[in-house]
Amino acid sequence: MDYYALPIANLIEELSKLPGVGRKTAQRLAFYILEMEPLEAEKLAYSITSAKEKIKYCSICCNLTDEDPCYICRNKKRDTSTICVVQGPKDVVAMEKTKEYTGLYHVLHGAISPMDNIGPDQIRIKELLKRIQNGEVKEVILATNPTVEGEATAMYISKLLKPMGIKTTRIAHGIPVGGDLEYYDEVTLSKAMENRREI
Amino acid sequence: MDYYALPIANLIEELSKLPGVGRKTAQRLAFYILEMEPLEAEKLAYSITSAKEKIKYCSICCNLTDEDPCYICRNKKRDTSTICVVQGPKDVVAMEKTKEYTGLYHVLHGAISPMDNIGPDQIRIKELLKRIQNGEVKEVILATNPTVEGEATAMYISKLLKPMGIKTTRIAHGIPVGGDLEYYDEVTLSKAMENRREI
Repeated sequence: MDYYALPIANLIEELSKLPGVGRKTAQRLAFYILEMEPLEAEKLAYSITSAKEKIKYCSICCNLTDEDPCYICRNKKRDTSTICVVQGPKDVVAMEKTKEYTGLYHVLHGAISPMDNIGPDQIRIKELLKRIQNGEVKEVILATNPTVEGEATAMYISKLLKPMGIKTTRIAHGIPVGGDLEYYDEVTLSKAMENRREI
Repeated sequence: MDYYALPIANLIEELSKLPGVGRKTAQRLAFYILEMEPLEAEKLAYSITSAKEKIKYCSICCNLTDEDPCYICRNKKRDTSTICVVQGPKDVVAMEKTKEYTGLYHVLHGAISPMDNIGPDQIRIKELLKRIQNGEVKEVILATNPTVEGEATAMYISKLLKPMGIKTTRIAHGIPVGGDLEYYDEVTLSKAMENRREI
């Protein structure tokens, strides 16, 4: 690192902490930033500090938002009797893009994973239970990822909710639309067979 | 973009301007930054503004530096009779890592490329010629990239320097050490043959 002036070395160091950014990429990004228009670089730096400053968790659904409650929880047109539980804020965006779902969300910020020391208390399950107390919620759709952790989380939550008389559903797993049968693993295929419907 | 709070949308927008960072990667980086420790995110933002503020071009060799002249131009132990001409600051680092070269550098910040409207005046050739006026420089090593643009730039500079009685040399092109003959193209191979030496 002796070959770089200190501010360049620092910039490379900080950039290389980002996920998927190795030493070489960090170097390339750093030199790109150094050759950028000063105003553009300032905008980049400002967008980071500004996002960190303004973005908080929504006090209702725990999604990332700059206004509390978030724009989904505030929206009077949304169906407040349904909550879709997802692992992260990105999943909310993916779901919203379908433009089909009109209920509310609950963002867990993770999934139960004993291997990584993440138990039910490390993710936002307590907050979900609190939301259900008011009796307005009729259905909780568990849309955690179809991974070991996601499945375990879905099972855990459904076991908590069922005694409360809440309908809990799990999103369907099967062959993605446009997917080619031969490329999917046996587990996906058997899920697809198991969940077959009459047409 | 309606699905993100404005500060998140801005952050994704700014990150996606970086080279090799598409929409999806920008989104992933943005959410990573949002989940980072506040102090870490601040360090990242600061490293950008700080580098932009402090890093300037060296008034002698045009390399990026936080002190003028840069640490190489200031180093009394360097051989001031040789200048190695490179396209970018990254090339200086690559060359310095060999720990073999003890002369000075000159960073062109680009190469002549009529296709991209980059002529000799858009890169730091004038600054190189000025350095040669003092009569101290005996040899100029042209270490621009072995591409069409790099070769054209090397040719252009050598044509300017030769009448001034300066020895101009070009770095050797051939098979990289550890490289396998069969993987290199004909041009590289014929260069390697052409530049063969008796052993």
